[in-house]
Amino acid sequence: MNSTPVLLTIAVLGGTGKEGKGLAFRWAKAGYRVLIGSRIPEKAKATALDLLNRLNGNAFIEGTSNQKAAGAADIAVLTVPYAAHRETLESVKDALYGKILIDVTVPLVPPKITKVQMPPAGSAAQEAKQYLGENVQVTSAFQNISHEFLLRDEPIECDVLVTGTSKEARTETLKLVAAAGLIGWDAGPIENSVVIEGLTSVLININKQHGVSNAGIKITGVSRES
Amino acid sequence: MNSTPVLLTIAVLGGTGKEGKGLAFRWAKAGYRVLIGSRIPEKAKATALDLLNRLNGNAFIEGTSNQKAAGAADIAVLTVPYAAHRETLESVKDALYGKILIDVTVPLVPPKITKVQMPPAGSAAQEAKQYLGENVQVTSAFQNISHEFLLRDEPIECDVLVTGTSKEARTETLKLVAAAGLIGWDAGPIENSVVIEGLTSVLININKQHGVSNAGIKITGVSRES
Repeated sequence: MNSTPVLLTIAVLGGTGKEGKGLAFRWAKAGYRVLIGSRIPEKAKATALDLLNRLNGNAFIEGTSNQKAAGAADIAVLTVPYAAHRETLESVKDALYGKILIDVTVPLVPPKITKVQMPPAGSAAQEAKQYLGENVQVTSAFQNISHEFLLRDEPIECDVLVTGTSKEARTETLKLVAAAGLIGWDAGPIENSVVIEGLTSVLININKQHGVSNAGIKITGVSRES
Repeated sequence: MNSTPVLLTIAVLGGTGKEGKGLAFRWAKAGYRVLIGSRIPEKAKATALDLLNRLNGNAFIEGTSNQKAAGAADIAVLTVPYAAHRETLESVKDALYGKILIDVTVPLVPPKITKVQMPPAGSAAQEAKQYLGENVQVTSAFQNISHEFLLRDEPIECDVLVTGTSKEARTETLKLVAAAGLIGWDAGPIENSVVIEGLTSVLININKQHGVSNAGIKITGVSRES
């Protein structure tokens, strides 16, 4: 990889979970430097080692704490269950100063996960924006993607809708969508994240009714050469 | 049409608008009795006549007031701009007693129509539910469908997500989706309507960025024999 341009370092916070691990795999494979973050650094190191083995050692992946990962990265991705959303944001707020945070969180409220139930801020991504303030750009993406396909390195028949606090942040996020082998669309301001987060409940509904596990969505009516 | 079973009578409230007219065309063509409703009955009569001509007189379509259409129909469909949503609901509330109302309204707030901005009830459909009370079943559908394709009788590459206050009402609504030549999906409770209404702003975003006019969505990962 000597002749390739220097790529960003991506922190995957909560990267020991299934979704984060799948995304980390895709980005490491694409040549990015990936830092797996976890509340428990030993777990992050184990995940990093597993991913490194899957890529035959031909990648840069390290495991550490969420704070250290966020501090050392150019861009951070938050992939924790909603119950750990606020706590994780608190632990990395300072480390994210001046950076982009891609929030993957879906605010499901068990047991009624087929019903859209957003927090008072409007969505998880808007909560992150409110809490992190103006010195962090927040985008939201990847909420509708099945983790199994990410890690199995199979083609994924589901598009990624990206919302965010600035056009620039959405553009950077769309680059990481493409690097993960997915088709992404700029879905507008962060206020639109309610649609994409809520779509997860709609897709869970469809999964249950049709006995499948990976209902997704595709944008139609536009050329897919993006 | 003597040997076909008796089909429902559908009231299309605000049916002189483009979306309502397109849906009325599809249902009349499928053999349903269609009543076009408008605040101005003369306009409804003109729309009915135009549709009847498009179908060479081989259909049942009449124009009248919104109240009379709602009162005489088995099921009603609300296709008015959001600015006329509450006022139209007030005019037909009594006439809808015991019936299903399919709300097609998208609460766009000009000029920022690319940004999701829902009313305090959570969505237009939830507003309708709150106002109409327990004696009317409310579903929401068709918010993402381009009217041009409906009236041109062309295939439409956009699925219809249906939410509603009961499974029964969603099932009835899905029958009308199929009758209009579209593929529909049960998207769960009426609280999920925020996703489908908000998706319209997301699709307008995509239209603007890609210079197209009919971005839509398709559900993937499930057999499309519905």
